[in-house]
Amino acid sequence: MWSVDEHLADILEAVRPLEPIELQLHDAQGCVLVEDVMVEIALPPFDNSSMDGYAVRVADIEGADEEFPAVLTVIGDVAAGSDGLPGDRAVGPGEAARIMTGAPLPAGAEAVVPVEWTDGGTGGGPADTMRSLSDAPEGAGGEVRVHRPVEARAHVRARGSDVKPGDLALSAGSVVGPPQIGLLAAIGRSTVKVRPRPRVVVISTGSELVQPGEELTGGRIYDSNSFALTAAAKDAGAIAYRVGAVTDDADTLRATIEDQLIRADIVVTTGGVSVGAYDVVKEALSSVGDEDEPGSGIDFRRLAMQPGKPQGFGSIGPDHTPLLALPGNPVSSYISFELFVRPVIRALMGLPDVNRPTVQAVLDTDKALTSPSGRRQFLRGTYDAEAGTVTPVGGAGSHLIGALARADALIVLPEDVTSAEPGTDTEVILLR
Amino acid sequence: MWSVDEHLADILEAVRPLEPIELQLHDAQGCVLVEDVMVEIALPPFDNSSMDGYAVRVADIEGADEEFPAVLTVIGDVAAGSDGLPGDRAVGPGEAARIMTGAPLPAGAEAVVPVEWTDGGTGGGPADTMRSLSDAPEGAGGEVRVHRPVEARAHVRARGSDVKPGDLALSAGSVVGPPQIGLLAAIGRSTVKVRPRPRVVVISTGSELVQPGEELTGGRIYDSNSFALTAAAKDAGAIAYRVGAVTDDADTLRATIEDQLIRADIVVTTGGVSVGAYDVVKEALSSVGDEDEPGSGIDFRRLAMQPGKPQGFGSIGPDHTPLLALPGNPVSSYISFELFVRPVIRALMGLPDVNRPTVQAVLDTDKALTSPSGRRQFLRGTYDAEAGTVTPVGGAGSHLIGALARADALIVLPEDVTSAEPGTDTEVILLR
Repeated sequence: MWSVDEHLADILEAVRPLEPIELQLHDAQGCVLVEDVMVEIALPPFDNSSMDGYAVRVADIEGADEEFPAVLTVIGDVAAGSDGLPGDRAVGPGEAARIMTGAPLPAGAEAVVPVEWTDGGTGGGPADTMRSLSDAPEGAGGEVRVHRPVEARAHVRARGSDVKPGDLALSAGSVVGPPQIGLLAAIGRSTVKVRPRPRVVVISTGSELVQPGEELTGGRIYDSNSFALTAAAKDAGAIAYRVGAVTDDADTLRATIEDQLIRADIVVTTGGVSVGAYDVVKEALSSVGDEDEPGSGIDFRRLAMQPGKPQGFGSIGPDHTPLLALPGNPVSSYISFELFVRPVIRALMGLPDVNRPTVQAVLDTDKALTSPSGRRQFLRGTYDAEAGTVTPVGGAGSHLIGALARADALIVLPEDVTSAEPGTDTEVILLR
Repeated sequence: MWSVDEHLADILEAVRPLEPIELQLHDAQGCVLVEDVMVEIALPPFDNSSMDGYAVRVADIEGADEEFPAVLTVIGDVAAGSDGLPGDRAVGPGEAARIMTGAPLPAGAEAVVPVEWTDGGTGGGPADTMRSLSDAPEGAGGEVRVHRPVEARAHVRARGSDVKPGDLALSAGSVVGPPQIGLLAAIGRSTVKVRPRPRVVVISTGSELVQPGEELTGGRIYDSNSFALTAAAKDAGAIAYRVGAVTDDADTLRATIEDQLIRADIVVTTGGVSVGAYDVVKEALSSVGDEDEPGSGIDFRRLAMQPGKPQGFGSIGPDHTPLLALPGNPVSSYISFELFVRPVIRALMGLPDVNRPTVQAVLDTDKALTSPSGRRQFLRGTYDAEAGTVTPVGGAGSHLIGALARADALIVLPEDVTSAEPGTDTEVILLR
């Protein structure tokens, strides 16, 4: 018998993060950087205006107010995207240039006066907006009255005030989320080196399995594991492929797995790992894998847990692709996925936290929960963060998928616990 | 001036959840159900074995122990997927059938004895496994010694003990996650009716914008908004399309938006909404939209917030597609997205919680933070859940995208706060 912790440690010991690849920014979302990204340009790349207004020389507007405005000659527009005034002109004494947010401060100018502190070139009172260039092209010329003085560098964002060449933009190990993608784009990076999302192939086994939507005949049930685990793999960050249920025939299963290896970073099977006479995964995989290679081949184990006792783990094929063979009961396979496969996916991605978060909660139940001695039990529950309580949902049966769909947490009863009274402080694994 | 809350309320008031569609299970992941899903079959569909073992009549094994085992004639196998014993045979007195986990309890049998409580048909001591059918076909015949009695119905999962026809499987409003997908598949549903993911078209505007990876010439900057907001839209649950930056030309922008409407449930633009003479979004969209229709057309507003003062909101085109025109500074546009666009995406999906979670935290800073009177300020910070503190990152400048990429929270300083001392209890919006 292996403990849950021993089994997980054995798996994680064998799994190496995927080789990094260079990806376009939009493909890198959610992935882990493997390089320190250094900044190669200044941000902003040039001194620029933080307001829509007028670029001026400060001496010209000293002491200006509404009664005695400074009157300046407007010599042109500096639009965002231009590199200064037309014809490389500079702002001279008594002159101003209309400037837009983000546009470069033109030569000669020392500060920006927001349009709201001027008459906007209208000859009237304080402006609350600039007239758009297309409606009023004459706004780029004529005169402007400035109603307030500003200090040098006012409303100017200095070149490099955000980041400078040689700065560390993002360190290796960072997860690439939306703001990180924004920063990478802003410093001109169109690609980054990250560990890719693992490709997970999910195969359910069992001659009793029928695809949902088809007719259910005697002795058969609908395949649910391949659907639930494919969704869970996506949820964990993987690219997941669902392979239809395979019948209980060792040759067919072996051929299917070998076929799928080309697109698999992990193979997950469900069913056929127990002690029965038709346990096809065990039969098919005990004789597969290049046993010459250390760590190759699949090892079938009994785990000191409930549900989920029978489990297989190993590697398969020329690339030693990790394979996890999970039990076939829907609840067992889902819990096994959360405990063992999710950590593998996240380890392959190079993420630091591979496990679901856990909390302590007070057991909210009418009667004591029982648990088999020497086995770690995982019961389904609903967690109430505000009350700090967890309430069991449904019973312990590993076929109770109706209750699983109402749960958002797993209640963990340790190996040495055989009975947990109402009010007991309990470990809870959060599933959302 | 609109308050942040008024603007958001105005937006959410105008937005209706998307019309539901029938989707395959794997496409429905993360979506909200609009139907109560009722169960139409029993789960399990038939009485079945929860163990690998032998299906027996209880009277035959009464009082059995290892010394005096009950010796039964094995009359055949019941495999999972079969609908009983071959030839519709029943288990008669003195007989047993080998049975696999999940296989239907054959006629005549009353309970299942796990293989570990028998000799497994070997004639030896207690078995720890069944020999696989292919290795030992004779296991389906001969004799089995049973070492322990069981009660009627032992190790039998009763038909309908999980869910029954007429039960409510999932209620309208449920989010379809992996366990819900598992349940839907298990009850035979291959499709469900959900609200689809909204399609968000992100367009950045500005003649100064260059695509990352290209050469940066005078007065130009890299387009980062379209990258960051497309990623943020995906993160919020949307299908997001990034449209390359559009130059500051109203006709081009109008044509681009009209072109994109075919694939848009929301249009998001950045830049060109302020008071400048080149504010193309304002210019292009103030004259678009069928103003005959109530609520149509785009309204440009000033919000009592920092950053993010200028904002546009309205609907556009024949389908009255919501359009949010965000300011162009990278930090302003990102914060505006989180505050206004994310809630729209989630409202379109029919999710109950449209806003990011907020917490209270103690301000961990050396000197007081300042904030303009009458405006709600959103500063970037890092939140420490264990310590219950939040630490500002970088300054207030709306161009500081380097600091944004290191933040995981927004520090909210209310309208009436002009200074927040170290140690102040502060509202924090969690970004992860």
